[in-house]
Amino acid sequence: MLLATLALAMLVPAVIDLAVGNPDWEVFAMASAFTLFVGVMLVLTNRVRFGSLTIRQAFLMTASAWVVLPAFAALPLHFADLQLSYTDAFFEAMSGITTTGSTVLVGLDFAPPGILLWRSLLQWLGGVGIIVMAVSILPMLQVGGMQLFRMEFAERVEKALPRAAQIGAWIAIIYLGLTLICAGLYRMADMPTFEAINHAMTTVATGGYSTHDRSVGVFESAWVDVVATVFMILGSLPFLLYLQALRAHPMALVTDSQVRWFFGFLGVAVAATVGYLHLGLERPFLDSIRVAAFNITSIMTGTGYATEDFGQWGAFAPPLFFLLMFIGGCAGSTTCGIKVFRFQVLYATARVQMKRLLQPNGVFIAYYNRKPIPDTVEASVMSFFFLFIMLFALIAIGLGMLGLDFITATSGAATAIANVGPGLGPVIGPAGNFATLPDAAKWLLSLAMLLGRLEIFTVLVLFAPGFWRQ
Amino acid sequence: MLLATLALAMLVPAVIDLAVGNPDWEVFAMASAFTLFVGVMLVLTNRVRFGSLTIRQAFLMTASAWVVLPAFAALPLHFADLQLSYTDAFFEAMSGITTTGSTVLVGLDFAPPGILLWRSLLQWLGGVGIIVMAVSILPMLQVGGMQLFRMEFAERVEKALPRAAQIGAWIAIIYLGLTLICAGLYRMADMPTFEAINHAMTTVATGGYSTHDRSVGVFESAWVDVVATVFMILGSLPFLLYLQALRAHPMALVTDSQVRWFFGFLGVAVAATVGYLHLGLERPFLDSIRVAAFNITSIMTGTGYATEDFGQWGAFAPPLFFLLMFIGGCAGSTTCGIKVFRFQVLYATARVQMKRLLQPNGVFIAYYNRKPIPDTVEASVMSFFFLFIMLFALIAIGLGMLGLDFITATSGAATAIANVGPGLGPVIGPAGNFATLPDAAKWLLSLAMLLGRLEIFTVLVLFAPGFWRQ
Repeated sequence: MLLATLALAMLVPAVIDLAVGNPDWEVFAMASAFTLFVGVMLVLTNRVRFGSLTIRQAFLMTASAWVVLPAFAALPLHFADLQLSYTDAFFEAMSGITTTGSTVLVGLDFAPPGILLWRSLLQWLGGVGIIVMAVSILPMLQVGGMQLFRMEFAERVEKALPRAAQIGAWIAIIYLGLTLICAGLYRMADMPTFEAINHAMTTVATGGYSTHDRSVGVFESAWVDVVATVFMILGSLPFLLYLQALRAHPMALVTDSQVRWFFGFLGVAVAATVGYLHLGLERPFLDSIRVAAFNITSIMTGTGYATEDFGQWGAFAPPLFFLLMFIGGCAGSTTCGIKVFRFQVLYATARVQMKRLLQPNGVFIAYYNRKPIPDTVEASVMSFFFLFIMLFALIAIGLGMLGLDFITATSGAATAIANVGPGLGPVIGPAGNFATLPDAAKWLLSLAMLLGRLEIFTVLVLFAPGFWRQ
Repeated sequence: MLLATLALAMLVPAVIDLAVGNPDWEVFAMASAFTLFVGVMLVLTNRVRFGSLTIRQAFLMTASAWVVLPAFAALPLHFADLQLSYTDAFFEAMSGITTTGSTVLVGLDFAPPGILLWRSLLQWLGGVGIIVMAVSILPMLQVGGMQLFRMEFAERVEKALPRAAQIGAWIAIIYLGLTLICAGLYRMADMPTFEAINHAMTTVATGGYSTHDRSVGVFESAWVDVVATVFMILGSLPFLLYLQALRAHPMALVTDSQVRWFFGFLGVAVAATVGYLHLGLERPFLDSIRVAAFNITSIMTGTGYATEDFGQWGAFAPPLFFLLMFIGGCAGSTTCGIKVFRFQVLYATARVQMKRLLQPNGVFIAYYNRKPIPDTVEASVMSFFFLFIMLFALIAIGLGMLGLDFITATSGAATAIANVGPGLGPVIGPAGNFATLPDAAKWLLSLAMLLGRLEIFTVLVLFAPGFWRQ
């Protein structure tokens, strides 16, 4: 059924290409037909009585969906007139659907509209898929501490909104609404309509694909930067809170501790960068704020737009940007990375440890959003953090073995597992491109994107010794 | 009393310099007299009744000892004929006493013997101080999961050896014995006697100070490399197990799971590097083994010797060496870093999480050395890991702000907090030197060394809001 949906989505670029007379429309149409065929065949051959999924099946379905969908989504990219190998096409599709935004395409400015729209659509669909997954499936599966939001969900929202399907529908409406508003504002900021729609889709999805090699920087417009910054932030907040704000508690967003921490991280990083740009590099104050807010938000939320090559800002930027990549946004948003709530849980636990050191017999409790954190959540979040860092390390070592230099290997591993987009340094930095990497590196990075997007555990559990037994 | 001990240690280089007619002997003698004076004054003015320390006092004493001792140990370095600023001298002393091994000195080959011996002595004393601290103080203070070894200690060793002081004495004897054997073997490998003694002290302490700018590579001797590799490893094993092996259980070292994991990490990293050097760079097989074993052991155990500039090995080495820095050796040894047992605890916890995902209602227990890991140890180890990574990140960002390039900032932060020695890249890599860094960076790195050496918590707890109250 997901494949059939993907097939329908492929018809959109087909229509667009047909309208402008680009021959790629046939590629999209044929890929759509093939994908639809496979999807329908799968539906027909697997029509068993509808029962509830076991936990194993839920894991397997989630993980395989995020492998099969990019495999089919890559078809039009591979067969279109872009000379992309299937490796490149798969990398591009995986980067799209996981809302990473790393690209192997050069010459976007002259690419046919169907291809551009397809990339944006992949991110947009990936973005809403992730929110729905984060709200419905992951808390149920208790992945990486996401069960924290299951309780919240049960306590706070369920009263107002009885059914999960209804919540999914509401989230989709809010997501669509944000995208339309964003597109309208981009249009008002003098962005051409087609580009406004594309950028709106990849902004709200915190994806980061652009229709230009120079990314958003090509518009050289303060208004575009402001709109992008605001909607990248809106895409990084918990979508369930929008629902709550609309339905019951107008202040839900303001009082949520995760949202506050998110703005705290962002504020400190922007302030430090503004200070550096204004005082250190003597750039005008307002310009510093605009540039810092845009680029820091883009990297921290894992969007991956760039208005300029921050690699040129001197020594200050790379370590800061490198480490911001890991943070991400809030749980239940389109962002990836470690996510703000996990830092809150880890910090609360470390604080308790500190208190326990001074009073070994005292009883101390870690809190999240004014509620005690259950032990299982604590252990789950900590294991997530450990595995995230370990996998980052292994992927960086792997990329080094494949011949990538230090900054490319480490920032490439970070940008992929945190689903950010650009890396650092001359090769894959904001001014660079992933096209020149060896094929093996592209597959490894695709795996990293998948791991990051599915919150690590959903993939790793498939390799657990007990998974395939019985 | 520690200062008085340090003052006595200063007399050793004074005697050596006097023997060879170097005028620095006066500097050592005066620094010794001053340090002794301050130490004795402190003893006399604080002669209160001897009671047991409160937990707060134990933390404060431990942390301040590791600040005050390098402050005094820096005096001879500052006043000797080396033109070292006090910043440089303090950095060098802190790097010595924490057994880090980062150096700001250039021209070691022509440095007076007193200075060389003083650096080696600092590492040697630091090394034994660390073991005693790790065996006696840290488990009592329950720092970062070290309470794991308090239980072991109580269960296994206390029967054979009733008193802590006796254990301390035995550890000192084993430490001295290993150093003497190492010096003898270095001498047999044709190292001059003075250098054999110096290198033996810094090998067993996994410190890494050398008497040559080119480090151990200057000897170009396979035997020296083998002796160094073996004794770096011996310095990285839990010293309590040596005691057990000597007194009761000859197989204690072989059956310990931490020791096995340590060799596992080492084996995998060496094998990968040998493969790369032999197959990739077409170096002779035996030469590859020798070079890989030496340099991997040196970096992973945090010693910091180098026989060649592995920065020249191509893209493979930097990410691997960067991440090996964090591992370290076993708890209760002279090594630093995150330490092997913490990886075991983290891995065991993550495995349990994985099982719990598949059977949410199952009861699973994480084991360390065939015993269940208490919840408090689990949380303590995880908080340690989180804080270690966060502090590394903050220090790397700080070094970036001070103008250091990406590889220097990130590897500098890692090498300091993990007490390794050299960093990566042209500036502070094995062929480089810390002398060219700005003063602020040296102080920041000194702080990082202190944090790493005192297992993070011992320093951070002093800044906890509750510490100074009441």
